[in-house]
Amino acid sequence: MTDIAALSCDEYRTETDGFGEIAVPKNKYYGANTARSIINFAIGGQTERMPIPIIRSFGILKLAAAEANRQFGLDETVANAIVKASKEVISGELDDHFPLVIWQTGSGTQTNMNVNEVISNRAIVMLNGEIGSKTPVHPNDHVNMSQSSNDTFPTAMHVAVAMEIENLLIPNLSSLCNTLHTKALEFKDIVKIGRTHLQDAVPLTLGQEFSGYAQQMVAGLERVESVRPRLYELAIGGTAVGTGLNTRVGFAEKVVERISKQTGLPFKTARNKFEALACHDAMVEVHGALNTLACSLMKIANDIRLLASGPRCGLAEISLPENEAGSSIMPGKVNPTQSEALTMVAAQVMGNQVAVSVGASNGHFELNVFKPMIVKNVLQSVRLLADASLSFTRYCVSGIEANKDNIDALMNKSLMLVTALNPHIGYDKAAQIAKLGHREGLTLKEAALKLGYLTEAQFDEWVRPEKMLGPK
Amino acid sequence: MTDIAALSCDEYRTETDGFGEIAVPKNKYYGANTARSIINFAIGGQTERMPIPIIRSFGILKLAAAEANRQFGLDETVANAIVKASKEVISGELDDHFPLVIWQTGSGTQTNMNVNEVISNRAIVMLNGEIGSKTPVHPNDHVNMSQSSNDTFPTAMHVAVAMEIENLLIPNLSSLCNTLHTKALEFKDIVKIGRTHLQDAVPLTLGQEFSGYAQQMVAGLERVESVRPRLYELAIGGTAVGTGLNTRVGFAEKVVERISKQTGLPFKTARNKFEALACHDAMVEVHGALNTLACSLMKIANDIRLLASGPRCGLAEISLPENEAGSSIMPGKVNPTQSEALTMVAAQVMGNQVAVSVGASNGHFELNVFKPMIVKNVLQSVRLLADASLSFTRYCVSGIEANKDNIDALMNKSLMLVTALNPHIGYDKAAQIAKLGHREGLTLKEAALKLGYLTEAQFDEWVRPEKMLGPK
Amino acid sequence: MTDIAALSCDEYRTETDGFGEIAVPKNKYYGANTARSIINFAIGGQTERMPIPIIRSFGILKLAAAEANRQFGLDETVANAIVKASKEVISGELDDHFPLVIWQTGSGTQTNMNVNEVISNRAIVMLNGEIGSKTPVHPNDHVNMSQSSNDTFPTAMHVAVAMEIENLLIPNLSSLCNTLHTKALEFKDIVKIGRTHLQDAVPLTLGQEFSGYAQQMVAGLERVESVRPRLYELAIGGTAVGTGLNTRVGFAEKVVERISKQTGLPFKTARNKFEALACHDAMVEVHGALNTLACSLMKIANDIRLLASGPRCGLAEISLPENEAGSSIMPGKVNPTQSEALTMVAAQVMGNQVAVSVGASNGHFELNVFKPMIVKNVLQSVRLLADASLSFTRYCVSGIEANKDNIDALMNKSLMLVTALNPHIGYDKAAQIAKLGHREGLTLKEAALKLGYLTEAQFDEWVRPEKMLGPK
Amino acid sequence: MTDIAALSCDEYRTETDGFGEIAVPKNKYYGANTARSIINFAIGGQTERMPIPIIRSFGILKLAAAEANRQFGLDETVANAIVKASKEVISGELDDHFPLVIWQTGSGTQTNMNVNEVISNRAIVMLNGEIGSKTPVHPNDHVNMSQSSNDTFPTAMHVAVAMEIENLLIPNLSSLCNTLHTKALEFKDIVKIGRTHLQDAVPLTLGQEFSGYAQQMVAGLERVESVRPRLYELAIGGTAVGTGLNTRVGFAEKVVERISKQTGLPFKTARNKFEALACHDAMVEVHGALNTLACSLMKIANDIRLLASGPRCGLAEISLPENEAGSSIMPGKVNPTQSEALTMVAAQVMGNQVAVSVGASNGHFELNVFKPMIVKNVLQSVRLLADASLSFTRYCVSGIEANKDNIDALMNKSLMLVTALNPHIGYDKAAQIAKLGHREGLTLKEAALKLGYLTEAQFDEWVRPEKMLGPK
Repeated sequence: MTDIAALSCDEYRTETDGFGEIAVPKNKYYGANTARSIINFAIGGQTERMPIPIIRSFGILKLAAAEANRQFGLDETVANAIVKASKEVISGELDDHFPLVIWQTGSGTQTNMNVNEVISNRAIVMLNGEIGSKTPVHPNDHVNMSQSSNDTFPTAMHVAVAMEIENLLIPNLSSLCNTLHTKALEFKDIVKIGRTHLQDAVPLTLGQEFSGYAQQMVAGLERVESVRPRLYELAIGGTAVGTGLNTRVGFAEKVVERISKQTGLPFKTARNKFEALACHDAMVEVHGALNTLACSLMKIANDIRLLASGPRCGLAEISLPENEAGSSIMPGKVNPTQSEALTMVAAQVMGNQVAVSVGASNGHFELNVFKPMIVKNVLQSVRLLADASLSFTRYCVSGIEANKDNIDALMNKSLMLVTALNPHIGYDKAAQIAKLGHREGLTLKEAALKLGYLTEAQFDEWVRPEKMLGPK
Repeated sequence: MTDIAALSCDEYRTETDGFGEIAVPKNKYYGANTARSIINFAIGGQTERMPIPIIRSFGILKLAAAEANRQFGLDETVANAIVKASKEVISGELDDHFPLVIWQTGSGTQTNMNVNEVISNRAIVMLNGEIGSKTPVHPNDHVNMSQSSNDTFPTAMHVAVAMEIENLLIPNLSSLCNTLHTKALEFKDIVKIGRTHLQDAVPLTLGQEFSGYAQQMVAGLERVESVRPRLYELAIGGTAVGTGLNTRVGFAEKVVERISKQTGLPFKTARNKFEALACHDAMVEVHGALNTLACSLMKIANDIRLLASGPRCGLAEISLPENEAGSSIMPGKVNPTQSEALTMVAAQVMGNQVAVSVGASNGHFELNVFKPMIVKNVLQSVRLLADASLSFTRYCVSGIEANKDNIDALMNKSLMLVTALNPHIGYDKAAQIAKLGHREGLTLKEAALKLGYLTEAQFDEWVRPEKMLGPK
Repeated sequence: MTDIAALSCDEYRTETDGFGEIAVPKNKYYGANTARSIINFAIGGQTERMPIPIIRSFGILKLAAAEANRQFGLDETVANAIVKASKEVISGELDDHFPLVIWQTGSGTQTNMNVNEVISNRAIVMLNGEIGSKTPVHPNDHVNMSQSSNDTFPTAMHVAVAMEIENLLIPNLSSLCNTLHTKALEFKDIVKIGRTHLQDAVPLTLGQEFSGYAQQMVAGLERVESVRPRLYELAIGGTAVGTGLNTRVGFAEKVVERISKQTGLPFKTARNKFEALACHDAMVEVHGALNTLACSLMKIANDIRLLASGPRCGLAEISLPENEAGSSIMPGKVNPTQSEALTMVAAQVMGNQVAVSVGASNGHFELNVFKPMIVKNVLQSVRLLADASLSFTRYCVSGIEANKDNIDALMNKSLMLVTALNPHIGYDKAAQIAKLGHREGLTLKEAALKLGYLTEAQFDEWVRPEKMLGPK
Repeated sequence: MTDIAALSCDEYRTETDGFGEIAVPKNKYYGANTARSIINFAIGGQTERMPIPIIRSFGILKLAAAEANRQFGLDETVANAIVKASKEVISGELDDHFPLVIWQTGSGTQTNMNVNEVISNRAIVMLNGEIGSKTPVHPNDHVNMSQSSNDTFPTAMHVAVAMEIENLLIPNLSSLCNTLHTKALEFKDIVKIGRTHLQDAVPLTLGQEFSGYAQQMVAGLERVESVRPRLYELAIGGTAVGTGLNTRVGFAEKVVERISKQTGLPFKTARNKFEALACHDAMVEVHGALNTLACSLMKIANDIRLLASGPRCGLAEISLPENEAGSSIMPGKVNPTQSEALTMVAAQVMGNQVAVSVGASNGHFELNVFKPMIVKNVLQSVRLLADASLSFTRYCVSGIEANKDNIDALMNKSLMLVTALNPHIGYDKAAQIAKLGHREGLTLKEAALKLGYLTEAQFDEWVRPEKMLGPK
C-alpha cells in the first residue's frame, strides 16, 4: 500500500495512458488524465480552480452511482470501497487532489476523470492495491460505471448549485429580509420627506421606505423558489449523448433517489436527457433570478448609503454602524463600506449573467461545452450574494439608526406637502403656490396665504404630513 | 367645437402653462406638456417613440380609473367622456397623438401627461367644449384623478408586458414547441450519429435530437409562466411615492378589477406599493425568462443551420425550406435565413437583458427613473421573440426534411460505435480499437478484428446502432 | 414609362423570380426579392426597419461602384443612370422604397438586393424602360457589378457608422465637452466640500469637480478617435468570400477613393478582405468606445442630479434649468429630466454592447451573419449618445447655476477639514479630533481646542479650505 | 526584534485602533485595519482575494513614493527601510501577508492600509523596532506620506493592468498571431470550398482563411496598443479628492518617473486628477479592447473546431493535435479542448465587460467605489486571454494539419463554382444551372451542359477553382 502522506511533493510516479508516459506526484491520488490536463491547461492559476462545491457534488454522485450499480452487478467490495472513498471527497478531506482549473475541456470531462482517478486510487489504497494500477477499482469501468462526463458533470452542476442555494443563499437572504422587516417596524412612525427623481416629494414613513426593501427581498426569495423545479432535474442516466447507452433501466432513478436522500433536496430525473446535456437553460434561468437579486440589492445598498450620506454635508437621515477606519489620509472618516462591498457584488453578478448566457447559448448538437465556465459563474454569484447579504445584514442593516432630528428638519422645509391641497383647490392653483414658495424662498404656508387660495386654518387642517401617509 | 380632422398640420394653437406660451398643432389632441417634451427631448427620432402597447395600456388604465372614480365622486358626464375617449386610445384610433420618445423623463411622466391631455381634450371635444380649455374635463384633476405618473406608468408597464406575453409570445412559442414535437415524432426512427464537442459520438435518433429542442420550449413556456405572479401585481393606488396620498381606500382594488376584466388577465393590487414604484425587479425577472428563451433559441437555430449545412460540402443531414434567393452574386444559393433572423433576435435580447438590469438597479429612493427604457426593452424582447419564433416555425421548422441517405452514410462511418463494447471488453481495450481504426483508416469492425479482442459474430451482435438508443 | 407617383398603394404588379410569382406594389421601385423578404420576415414591425444611414450609405457605395465599373466596361448610359438613381437614394427621396426590417438574412443580402432593385428600376424608369424588366439596367449584373452582399453590406456598415460619428457624435460631444469646460471656469473659485464614498471629505472647487467631467469628455473624444483607423477600412472588393472573385484589380481602390471623396472621410481598402467579411471586430471596437462614453455620461448625469437634489431636502449645491412640469400629481415639482434621458441612453448603450459582442463573436467561416443587428445597435448607440448629449448640453448643463450659499454652509460644517492637520500633528491625533467632534456634535475647531493638540491661532492658520485645493 | 518566521499561526498579538482592541496573528506583518477587514468582509473566501498583481504594483508605488518623499523631508533611515520592505512586496516574498478579499471597501482603502501596515511593520522589524508600534515607521505618516487610498489604489490599478498587458498579454497574443501567419503561409496553396451562411460558397485557399484569423490578431494588438495612452496616466498626486492636498508640488512627477523606471513603461501623471479618482473610464476602455479580443478569439476557436469536426462525420478539413483522452465513456475520442477552453474564456471576458461597465458607471462625486471589483475583472480578463491564447497556440494551432484529400473532395462537389459564369452568361442563367444541379443531383458541368448555355470547352476554361481566388 502506498502511504500517501509520507511522500514529499517532488516525488513522482510514472503513469502511462494512450498518449504515452506522464509523471504524476506520488502523494496525489489523481492519475494520468489529471496530470495531462494540468500541463495542457495552464490557464489562470490557482484562483481559477474548479469550485469546491462541484467536487463535493461529484462525491455525492459517485457514491450514489456506486450504490445503484451494486444493484446492477458491481462487485460488492468494489462498490463499498467507492462509497467509502466518495465520502472522503464529500467531507473535503481530498480537496487537495483536485488541482484542475475551470478552463479545461468544456464538458468538464477532465474533472470527471480527476474524480474517477482519485476515487479509484483512494479505493485501491483502501483495499491495499497499488495506486495507479486501476485494479481492483477501475476509474472508468467501475467508478464511472453507467456514466459519462456528459451526464455526470451537469448532474454535479445542478446538485452543487441547488445545495449552495439551499444552504447558503436562502438562509442569508432570509436573514436580510427579516432584518429589513424589523427595521421597517422599528421606523414605522418616523415621517420623512419622500424623494422622487432625487427631488423632494410627498412624505412617507421611514418604515414604509424600508418595507419596500423588505418586499424586494420577499419577492427575491420567491424568484429563487420559482426556478428550482428545473434546477432539481438531474441529467444522470443520459450518459454520452442523452440516450443512456451503457446504462441500465432504473439506474437514473436510483441514483437520483440516493442523491436526494443525501442532500435532503427533492431532485428528480430530467424529463428529457437530450435537453439536459445539450443545453444549460436551467442555469441561465437560475442566474436570471440571481441577476434580479443583484439589481434589488444594488438599489437597497445604494439607497442606504445615500440616506446615510454626511455626516454633516449630506442627507444624514440615518446613521450606519461604524466598523472601521475609512481613510488612510482623512482622519476619523467612516464610510458605508458594507454598501460598497454589496454593490460591487451586484455588478459582478450582472456581469456573470452575460458570461452564463453567452456560454449557454453556444452549445452544439448533443453537448454544451461551456459547462465549467457556466457553473463557476453561477456558483460564484450564489456565494457572493449570500456572503455579502449576510455581511450587509450583520455589519450594516441591523445597526441602522434613524436621525430623527435631521429627518424632521428636512421634511418641514419641503414645498411638496402642497400636494395635499390638490383635492381642495386643484392642481393648477397648488402649482402656483409651490412655485411662488420656491421662487421667493417662502415656506409653503407663507406662499399659500400670500396667494389667498385658502385660509390659515384650512392650511393647518389640510397640510399635515402625518395625514399624508395613505389613501383616505 | 374644434374640428380636428379639418385642420392642416402646420396650423398651431397657443397654449400656456407654468413655463409660458407654447405652440401646439391644432390637429392634435395633446397639449402644452407634450409639446414641451417634443422640444426638450429631440432624441432618437421616430423609431424611438414610446411603444404602442404602453399607449394602449394607458387607455385601459384611464378607462378603469374613470369608472372607479365615478364611485368616488367624479361627475358622471366627465367620467363617461373619459371612458369614451379612453376607448379610442385602446382601439388605436388616436395613436398619432402620442409623439413622445422613450428618452424623456425617466418616470414616463410626460407620456402620462400626454395621455391625460389627449383624453381630456378628446373628451372635451366630445362634450362640445373648447380644446385646450381643460374644462369640463381637466387632464390632472379628472383624467389623472387619484393617480400619479409614478403609479400609472408602472401599471401600464405591467399591463402592456402581460398582454404582449399572453397574446403574442405564448401562442407563438407554443406553436414552435408543437412543431418541434411533431418533427420529433416524424423523425423518431431515423438513427443518426451523435456529436459531442462537434466530434463524432454515439448514435441517437433525429427525433431524439428534436425532442431536446421541444423540451427547451416546454421549459421556456414554464419559465414565462413562473414569472407571471409578480408581473400581475399593479402599482396603481400608490400615487406619488407609494403611500396612496390623494387617492381613496378601495380605489386601487376597483381599478385593478376593471383592468382584469378588460384584459382577461388576473391582475391584483401590488402587495407593497413602495416596492412597486421604486424598483422594477419584476421587469428584470420577466426579462430573465426572455433571456433564457433567447439562449434556447440561439442553440436550436444554430443546430438547425449546422445540420442543414451544405448542400454538398457540409453535414447536410436535414434540408430546410428554400424561401428566397440567398446571394446577389452566387446564383442559386439558398441560406438558412430564418435561423439567422432568430439568432440575431437572440443576441438582441441578450443585450436588452443588460439594459434592463442596469436601469432597474439604478433607482433612487421612492422612484426608479429608467421606466420608459426598461419597458421598451422588455416589450421589444417579447415582440421580437414572438415574431421571430413564428417566422422560424412557419418558414423553417415546419418544412424541415431529413436527408436519410446522408444520415445513414455518415453514421456508418463512425468509430464511436465502439462505445457499445465497453460493457463487454472494457474501456481500455475499446480505446485501442478506436485509435487503431482512426490511425489506419480502418472501419471499426476491421480494427476490432485486427486486435482480436472479439469475434466477428460478437461484433455484429454488440455493435448495432439501433440497439444503442437507450438504457438496457 | 411608369409614373410611380400616380399609382395607388393597393395596386400591384406581378414579378417572377426563381421561387415563382409574387405581387409587388406598383408604386414601389423594389422588386421580387424585397417583396419576398417582407413576407418571410414579419418580425418587429415598422420601428425595426433597416436604419436609414445604412440605406444612404448604400447609395454612396452604388454610385461609387458604378463610376468605377465605368472604367471596367460598364456601359456609359447604364452607369450614368445608376449614378443618378443612387443620388436619389443618398438624398433620401427614395426612403419609402426600403421597407425591410433588420431581422432578415444575417448578411443583409435582402437589403443589398432591395437597393439593387430600387436603383435598377429607378434607372430603368429614367431611361424610359419598363419597371421590373431588368433592362437596360440589371440589378445584379449592373447595379451589383463586381460586388456581393458580403462586401457591400459591411462597406455600408462602416460608411454609415463613420459618417454618423463624424457628423453627429463628435460635434455633439464636443459641444458638451466645451460647455463643461466653460462651467469649470465659471465655477473655479467656488470652494465646496468634496465627497468620497458619499461621505464628507476634503474640499475642492466646484470648477475642479466640473473639470473632471470635462476631462471625461476629452478622453471620450480621444477614444472615438482612436478606433477610427479600423473603422475606415472598407470591405468592398472582397465580393463573396473575400477573394474578390468576379471583380477587377483596382476596383476596390477606385470605389474607396470615390466614397472618400463623397464623404470627406479617409476610407481605405481593408488590409485583409477575409477578415472584413468574416468578422466585425471593428464594430465591437467602435462600440467599446461608445460603451465607455456611456459609462462616463452615466457618472456625469448622475452626479449632476445628485448635486441638484432638493430643492430643500437634498444637497442643492447647484440648480438646473426648469424646463417643464415634473409631476402630474405634485404641483410645482421640477425634475432633472435631462439627466434621466441621458442615463437611460447610457443603460441602453451598455446593453447594446452585449448585443454587438454576441453577434460579432458568432460568425462562421467566411461570413458573419449578424450584420444588420450589429450595425443597428452601433448606429442606435451613436445616435442616442449624440442626441442625448446635445439635449443635455442645451437644456441642462449650459444653464447650471451654483447655489453658493448652500455650498458654503455645507462646507463650513464639515469635520474633514481636519485632514489639513496631518502634516502638523499626525494622522492619529487628527483622527481623535474628528471623532470627538462627530461624537459630541462640536465644530472642528471646538474639538481641536478641547483636545489641546494645537492652539486656536494654529488652527486658524492651518485649517483654511481655500488653501486646501492643491499640493504645497 | 520579532522573529516572524518562528511564530505559529495561532498566536495572536493585540492591537488597538480607534475602534478598540483587535487580535492580529503574530506571524503576520499586517495590523488592526487588515484584521478588521477580515472580520467585516467574510465574502467569497480565498479565491476572491485581491489579485497579486495589485499587491506587487502597490510595492512598486510605495517604493517610488518613499524615494520621492526622501526629497521632501522624509527621514533617510525611514525611507530606506520603506524601500527595502517594498522590494519584498514586489518580489512576492510577502504575498501571504495580504489576506483581504476584493469585496471590501470600494476604494480599496483596506488594501492600501494592508500595504501600509505590512511595509511599516516589515520596515520596523528591519530596524529592530517593535511590530505594531508604528515607530519608527508609521503606516500613515510615513508609508502613506503624501498619499491617499484614493490616488494610490487607482495608480496600482493602472500599473498592474499595464504590466500584465505588457508582460503577459502582448507576448502571448503575438505568439498566436505569428503562428496563425505561419499557418496561413503553410496553407497558401490549398484551395478549398468557402462557406457563407454555413452553406457552400465560392472557393478560397485555406491559407486565405487563416490569414483572416491572423489579421484579427494583428488588429487586436493594435487595439490594445491604442488604449494604452490613457492607461499610462497615473492618479498619484491627487490624494483624497484630486486636489493633491497634503502632497507636494513635484511629488506626482517624481513618483511617476520612478515607477516608469521600475517597470520600463512610459507612465505619466494624469492630466486631470479629479477624473482619475472619480471614474475608471480608462479601465472600461481597456476592457473594451479585451472584449473585442474575446469576440475575435471566439470566432477563430469556433471556426477551428468546426473545420476539425469529425473525424468521420464532420467537415474534417483540418486535424488538430491529439493531447488527451476526450471521453470517460467513449473510448478513443479526442476533442477540440483547446478551442473549448478559449471560447469559455471569451464568454467570461464578455461577462466581465458588463461587470466593469456597471461598476465604472456608478461612481459618485469625487470617488468611484467599485475599484477592487473593476480591476479584478480587468486583470482576470487579461490573464485568461493571455494564458488561453498561449495554450491555444501551443497545443492546438501550431499542430494543425490540413486534410487535403477531404478538402479536395468537398470542393469538387460544390455547385457554387457556378459563380464564375456570371461575367459570361449573367446571374440569372447561372442561377438556373445551379438550381438544376441541386434539384437533380447533377454535377455543375452536367447541369450547365444540359441547359446548353455554354459548351464543355467554355465550362472547362471558365470554371477553375484555382483561378477563382482573386480579382482579375
